[in-house]
Amino acid sequence: MRKALAEAELALHEGEIPIGAVVVCKDRIIARAHNLTETLTDVTAHAEMQAITMAANELGGKYLTDCTLYVTVEPCPMCAGAIGWAQVPRIIYGAADPKRGFREYAPRVLHPKAESKGGILEEECRQLMQDFFKSRR
Amino acid sequence: MRKALAEAELALHEGEIPIGAVVVCKDRIIARAHNLTETLTDVTAHAEMQAITMAANELGGKYLTDCTLYVTVEPCPMCAGAIGWAQVPRIIYGAADPKRGFREYAPRVLHPKAESKGGILEEECRQLMQDFFKSRR
Repeated sequence: MRKALAEAELALHEGEIPIGAVVVCKDRIIARAHNLTETLTDVTAHAEMQAITMAANELGGKYLTDCTLYVTVEPCPMCAGAIGWAQVPRIIYGAADPKRGFREYAPRVLHPKAESKGGILEEECRQLMQDFFKSRR
Repeated sequence: MRKALAEAELALHEGEIPIGAVVVCKDRIIARAHNLTETLTDVTAHAEMQAITMAANELGGKYLTDCTLYVTVEPCPMCAGAIGWAQVPRIIYGAADPKRGFREYAPRVLHPKAESKGGILEEECRQLMQDFFKSRR
């Protein structure tokens, strides 16, 4: 999660909503990404989406069945849908997102056997988001 | 929807699940895409996702607030999430997808004011899907 937070900080410096994601496969980081929706002018360029695409590219296969996704904020329904399609079995996130998160809006889109767990480095993940939105006001 | 169907037929010829999408803005087609998940080895390469990215690129802005998205099959939660983020106000689809569609799994992810309507060229859209899955058995 520290590496995902480092990615989120990169996003912050680029004027992006500071969310970072990392995919780990067999103790090795195979993808790291941060939100690039402003830079790419593309709502689909969330950290998780890019990390999933990168990880599949690295592994040479669509399914990430041996992977863990770390992301600094609870995934939105779009990202959770992608995580479900990729059959990621383990999702670890930092800050909860009750207003936009998948648990409220799409609770059944992850793979049925997937586990998700939040609250890891929660305070730091949330603080980055708060700092960003405060600076925008 | 005929143009979206033509895209779905392209997907079929490429061995992809035959789904096509088109984005129309002020009576002009600004994006057309078909499913490329196998070709790109990427679960995120659904027709709608690519069409949204293309349309934003064409317009030079992330939000597709003057657009209509046509897609041959009811969007999944991932795509519906992206459609929501892009604030697409009008979604027209062909065949319903009760097993994977957003209406069952993520009914509140579209923009609150968005309208969605299914059943347009439904039979042809569904037939393409059935032909594909039959050929795979």
